[in-house]
Amino acid sequence: MFASRLDRARALMADQSVDVLMLSVGADLPYFCGYEAMPLERLTMLVVPRDGEATLVVPRMEAPRVVERPEVFGMRPWDETEDPVDIVTRLAGSASVAAVGDHMWSRFLVELMGAMPDAVWRRGSDVTAPIRSVKTADEIERLRAAAAAVDRIAGRLQRGEIELLGLTEAEVSAELGRQILAEGHDRVNFAIVAAGANAASPHHEPGPRIVGPDEVVLCDFGGTMVGDDGVGYCSDITRCVYTGEPPSEFDELYGVLFEAQAAGVAAAAAGTPAQDVDRAARSIIAAAGYGDYFVHRTGHGIGTEAHEDPYIVEGNDQPLAAGNAFSVEPGIYVPGRWGARLEDIVAISPAGPDPLNRADHHLAVVA
Amino acid sequence: MFASRLDRARALMADQSVDVLMLSVGADLPYFCGYEAMPLERLTMLVVPRDGEATLVVPRMEAPRVVERPEVFGMRPWDETEDPVDIVTRLAGSASVAAVGDHMWSRFLVELMGAMPDAVWRRGSDVTAPIRSVKTADEIERLRAAAAAVDRIAGRLQRGEIELLGLTEAEVSAELGRQILAEGHDRVNFAIVAAGANAASPHHEPGPRIVGPDEVVLCDFGGTMVGDDGVGYCSDITRCVYTGEPPSEFDELYGVLFEAQAAGVAAAAAGTPAQDVDRAARSIIAAAGYGDYFVHRTGHGIGTEAHEDPYIVEGNDQPLAAGNAFSVEPGIYVPGRWGARLEDIVAISPAGPDPLNRADHHLAVVA
Repeated sequence: MFASRLDRARALMADQSVDVLMLSVGADLPYFCGYEAMPLERLTMLVVPRDGEATLVVPRMEAPRVVERPEVFGMRPWDETEDPVDIVTRLAGSASVAAVGDHMWSRFLVELMGAMPDAVWRRGSDVTAPIRSVKTADEIERLRAAAAAVDRIAGRLQRGEIELLGLTEAEVSAELGRQILAEGHDRVNFAIVAAGANAASPHHEPGPRIVGPDEVVLCDFGGTMVGDDGVGYCSDITRCVYTGEPPSEFDELYGVLFEAQAAGVAAAAAGTPAQDVDRAARSIIAAAGYGDYFVHRTGHGIGTEAHEDPYIVEGNDQPLAAGNAFSVEPGIYVPGRWGARLEDIVAISPAGPDPLNRADHHLAVVA
Repeated sequence: MFASRLDRARALMADQSVDVLMLSVGADLPYFCGYEAMPLERLTMLVVPRDGEATLVVPRMEAPRVVERPEVFGMRPWDETEDPVDIVTRLAGSASVAAVGDHMWSRFLVELMGAMPDAVWRRGSDVTAPIRSVKTADEIERLRAAAAAVDRIAGRLQRGEIELLGLTEAEVSAELGRQILAEGHDRVNFAIVAAGANAASPHHEPGPRIVGPDEVVLCDFGGTMVGDDGVGYCSDITRCVYTGEPPSEFDELYGVLFEAQAAGVAAAAAGTPAQDVDRAARSIIAAAGYGDYFVHRTGHGIGTEAHEDPYIVEGNDQPLAAGNAFSVEPGIYVPGRWGARLEDIVAISPAGPDPLNRADHHLAVVA
């Protein structure tokens, strides 16, 4: 599997006249070689010449963590007093166009620019995103398993089985984190809990605010499930509950959101430009008069990374393809008052949209 | 405080002929403006022209998370359909030398290189490290508080109050993580638990291996305590315990490590080249015949980041200065058999080394 992924990368490198691909921290490295680099100041890098053998440059003290795959990559452990940039530069040879992993620390790119002054630098995702964004059937099943795990947590939340009243947002977030791990994930990526007016901040940091009666509680959470091959796949879901009977004004807002999210999912078909999914959801929210309160794009791709291509945003006219998987997550945020978001992960099958999350989409009343 | 830090950065920019400083994800941003960027594909960047006002470019949906400090920086929220690289480029004006934060994602540097084709790029740490690595008295006290918190956990570990036997490394790691948070940290940065032969891998990933009787258990853990000003300071400690009476061969190894670590701490004085601390510890381990088993540098600076300047490594002949804080953590690793590491954070006061960790340095027997 890893060898075939690298073969496809080399084919794209040839199409794009890229001589060497350099992958470091983030999701590229596990996707292409099954090893995840520690995000530290010691450089780990998979150097993939278009026409030569791939080499994993890794700090010697981290080499014992690597599952070696000699058929995929060679190993070049480096000692504490060696210069890893020098090693990478020699492996890159006479490369004139180099693509570097999107998440690589800039300090290493600055150093590589000094060591390879004539090279032209490109985003690694030019090469990796077209491959990573089209999932195989096996990858879709792994995303489905991760989605089912957070669906079970969402179900407990909606049935009132996760304590909210009197707890702080941070405490509820910690409990969601525990359940994410207990449901089979290896990492918690985030567990946003935003109560009342805090729900109007899409990326609210759960804090000391105590959840009270008669308010919305927005929960957006997900993690990563790592398989035996060292590659992890992500979950991501948002559901809102109300700690009491919601006022009709909130019911109305949520009803618009419900319709908008369903319309976004329904629009997710192969061949449709990505921005049309955004437009499908946004037009319903705008028509209901909430347009100014939907302040973010409709979604993001998901796979080995929580956010990746394709992005579901106005301006992205790339057609969606079978095997894409992404979130559909419109929101309505009224500053100082309240907010709501509704999110599923949706895969595109040849037959149309294949929603991976199945938790109830209605606003649950939990008190 | 933030304004004075930026003033010092501007003075260093003038010394180094840097026209603009661009800080993004990682510890620079909270250190200089009290805001920590979400490590996501939406660009957050503090743009600091040498002679102009600083501006925080931030996704509009994340703007509510920012504590605004108009006397320190202006705000430029960007909408989902805007191009943040274009905004940053305009704020940089005619800069010909730009220093970019070390942890900034390379994809943004590649895009900035395209938008500012004539600029020369430098590591942000050229400007920020000389400032961040010399701590004020207040910063040392915050590091001391974080150190005292993990000392309390180490004490419980050494007194046998943290269950080990029959648990997996991963379970012990999770318990250490819980205690790190319970002791006042806001984040767990790592909690390495390595039993038996796994202790020979310095960055071992805690896994399903069950801790048994009569073996070493190496625990290396730390977190970040965030203050009211949004700036967090890190802890980092390593202690080993033995689940039974250690064999004399291990006792001997540990005795060498104990002496080496104490020698490293004793050498940590203002004016001493950083590499001399490494040499002080390493020479004792080498003289005892374990030189090939000490496979990493002796330490790393610590502050708002878990690893930062100064690095205590052969080749770093920079003199240490009062206000520096760093780990002194030699280790001896015998592959396939066992290993040990002993780590304190040490600050340099004008009077000499000021060890912030005070937990017992002897090998504790816990069964």
